[in-house]
Amino acid sequence: MTDVRAFVTEHRADLLHDLDSWLRIPGISAQSAHHADVQRSAEWLAEAFRRTGFPTVEIWPTEGLPAVFAEWPAADDDAPVALVYGHHDVQPVDPIELWRTDPFDPTIDGDVLRARGASDDKGQLLFHLLGLRAHLAETGETSPAVTLKFLIEGEEESGSPNFEKLLSDRRARLDCDVVVITDTGMLAEDVPSAVTGMRGLVVGTVAFHGPDLDLHSGVFGGAVPNPATAIARLVAALHDEDGVVQVPDFYDDVRTLTETEQKLFAMVPFDEDAFLATSKSRALAGEGGYSTLERLGARPTAEVNGLGGGYQGDGGKTIVPSDAFAKLSFRLVADQNPSKIRAAVERFVGTHVPPGITHTIDWEGDGVAPCIVGIDTAAYGALSRAIGSAFDTEIVLPTREGGSGPEAAIQSALGAPLIFLGVGLPDDQIHAPNEKVTLSMLYKGAEATAHLWREIAALGRDGVRA
Amino acid sequence: MTDVRAFVTEHRADLLHDLDSWLRIPGISAQSAHHADVQRSAEWLAEAFRRTGFPTVEIWPTEGLPAVFAEWPAADDDAPVALVYGHHDVQPVDPIELWRTDPFDPTIDGDVLRARGASDDKGQLLFHLLGLRAHLAETGETSPAVTLKFLIEGEEESGSPNFEKLLSDRRARLDCDVVVITDTGMLAEDVPSAVTGMRGLVVGTVAFHGPDLDLHSGVFGGAVPNPATAIARLVAALHDEDGVVQVPDFYDDVRTLTETEQKLFAMVPFDEDAFLATSKSRALAGEGGYSTLERLGARPTAEVNGLGGGYQGDGGKTIVPSDAFAKLSFRLVADQNPSKIRAAVERFVGTHVPPGITHTIDWEGDGVAPCIVGIDTAAYGALSRAIGSAFDTEIVLPTREGGSGPEAAIQSALGAPLIFLGVGLPDDQIHAPNEKVTLSMLYKGAEATAHLWREIAALGRDGVRA
Repeated sequence: MTDVRAFVTEHRADLLHDLDSWLRIPGISAQSAHHADVQRSAEWLAEAFRRTGFPTVEIWPTEGLPAVFAEWPAADDDAPVALVYGHHDVQPVDPIELWRTDPFDPTIDGDVLRARGASDDKGQLLFHLLGLRAHLAETGETSPAVTLKFLIEGEEESGSPNFEKLLSDRRARLDCDVVVITDTGMLAEDVPSAVTGMRGLVVGTVAFHGPDLDLHSGVFGGAVPNPATAIARLVAALHDEDGVVQVPDFYDDVRTLTETEQKLFAMVPFDEDAFLATSKSRALAGEGGYSTLERLGARPTAEVNGLGGGYQGDGGKTIVPSDAFAKLSFRLVADQNPSKIRAAVERFVGTHVPPGITHTIDWEGDGVAPCIVGIDTAAYGALSRAIGSAFDTEIVLPTREGGSGPEAAIQSALGAPLIFLGVGLPDDQIHAPNEKVTLSMLYKGAEATAHLWREIAALGRDGVRA
Repeated sequence: MTDVRAFVTEHRADLLHDLDSWLRIPGISAQSAHHADVQRSAEWLAEAFRRTGFPTVEIWPTEGLPAVFAEWPAADDDAPVALVYGHHDVQPVDPIELWRTDPFDPTIDGDVLRARGASDDKGQLLFHLLGLRAHLAETGETSPAVTLKFLIEGEEESGSPNFEKLLSDRRARLDCDVVVITDTGMLAEDVPSAVTGMRGLVVGTVAFHGPDLDLHSGVFGGAVPNPATAIARLVAALHDEDGVVQVPDFYDDVRTLTETEQKLFAMVPFDEDAFLATSKSRALAGEGGYSTLERLGARPTAEVNGLGGGYQGDGGKTIVPSDAFAKLSFRLVADQNPSKIRAAVERFVGTHVPPGITHTIDWEGDGVAPCIVGIDTAAYGALSRAIGSAFDTEIVLPTREGGSGPEAAIQSALGAPLIFLGVGLPDDQIHAPNEKVTLSMLYKGAEATAHLWREIAALGRDGVRA
């Protein structure tokens, strides 16, 4: 039996070798010219699973791009089943001229490896393979202490258009007791943390129609309803002076932070200057009574993403416009429900349509439910201990991400608790030029995953769901 | 000596012949392909003035398209000097497919003549020539009872870009005691009326800048200021629930309607269904406490002509936009001052810029001052009697137009009282396909102008300015 850290340290070169090979495949799911590369990426990953020892490895086609599924049963039929979610596709590289190195020629500089996909998500998936080998070395067994399943999507960077159908079609094969999401990050190299929530999302366009054509504002201005004025009044009515969303019933189902959660949020380091620099903004803003991290992670928002109507060119044109629109999005937190929020917004809009204006609301899809991890659950406890062992510290701060991914769909389809094990860092520049990963974080991730399987096995099937 | 009506009736064919000839010249000032036609139009008009007997006829070049100036002195050096303003250029004809006849092949159908420029403004200018001949026939003299000057612009349909300079350069030649604007209309064939006011105008673009680039609304939404929300709140703050403009000091200089003016406004026929049909709108709106005609003619407005910012494409894009703008225009009434209004709006905008947002305001030019004709002035009295004689009725209702033209610049440059003699009708479709003029209105216009010179001569130079 070998110590986990010793094994990982000794076999770092294997991880670097695999990374160098896989990162050279430009599997950009959003660009059809690269769809053959996404296929190659799936095949590369399937081969890597086989090489690691997984007895079952399958490439699952979809109506779009393929996912990879791998399974390695525990010797003990009663061992918990853990499913790891990640994705093998990558973001486009534009604007390419801002890259200092070739995005598909991985370049190591000290502890940093630069390439598209280094952090999101190839590096994070490969630490699992090294970590699993460390786990087997530690236990001296030929199969893991938990039954492991990996579901690695090929369209996450394109909005996962076929993912829910895949979950539904393959439901039986995906049965599990806990889901490990490996597509997130930590606060800093020396501040190990785990994501415990992702916001949900509802997106729609409200269009107001006034006169049937643009009118001369001298001849008609001041005597007929102006849809641009009306849409501005609607958008203005979304928040009060204190940034509180004014849609009736909007906050009804919001789970308020417990005292413990508030304390933990307050412990998370927040550097206002760094946040403003990253967001290229000049001031903080948002809902009164909450910190910036609470606003981003634990509070829902109403945001106008686009506003339009009437004359858009240079100078002026004295018209009463015929049409105006607002593109709105609402980030949701537990336990808000996308369809209830849509209905509340529809009622709210209805009360803000003046006489003489007609309106439509077009929603994008069904929306995304929020997801949240209870920090008092057994699965989170196991994760916290595993990260603590890897980082030599007992504190694992819970964080919440403001964005929305396929996690809620996974949770809903599989009915198992979610935990997030990711070692990206805030400056990894994912989705941007010069994406990088910090190699020592990947090594820590490998250690953490080795510890995690042991911790989950110790809980047992019922225990991990508690 | 001949009766005015008898002369006009006898010589109708001359007016129709001239109209047919001039309307065939497509003098579209907004289209450079037609600039040679605008030049031909000026030459045609100059020749028509000469043919009528004007001893002085000049084509005045500008940096753009030429104006025509004609002068015919009265025999009496002390006679009042009247200057007639109009324009010889016409609007474009797009969308050409909606015309039922060729816009430059004048077509007579009963009392209606259809062609581009028939009403705006060629028909209205030509009734002056017939009217002047009737005036000479009535008096039996070889020169008019007032010194007549005509200043006929060639760029009115392109925003009169060189007109103020022309007024300033030719100031001495344009000296006069009263200005007759011949580019407007009456309420209906059987409701003779005269415009007594045109609104002024201030136009500008307010731009708000938030983050220096579009941000991911999941990662940053709810924590940084959104310029689209801020611009919507600014636009919403422009009016209260009752349509009253909320810019402080906005109404300070507004001349309120006298009791007489209110009564006259109330006498003007207003057909709500017809107005809604013309404006392709489904409801009336505007400042509380005023009728639609008062809102259009006697009250200032704040209107948003364009609104923009953030994502403009199909579907949704979850960003916090970097920029947003509102294109605003303010119609002004006597005695509002464009530069005072600009300053008031700048102060108002300044108080609506949230922390973290920067802003700019770009004004279009210096704005246009409102102009108004006192209905108790001698010049308006002369006009009212002249129209009354032509239409065989004593009532001449004062109206006010909502739009803004070069009239204020004329009033300000020449320092003489303005009156409006125009016989267009609301359904003339000026600036639109199938422009028409009602011929009997042109004949009445010719009679009115013949009566007007006699009435003004009777007032004397000092009298007409009273």
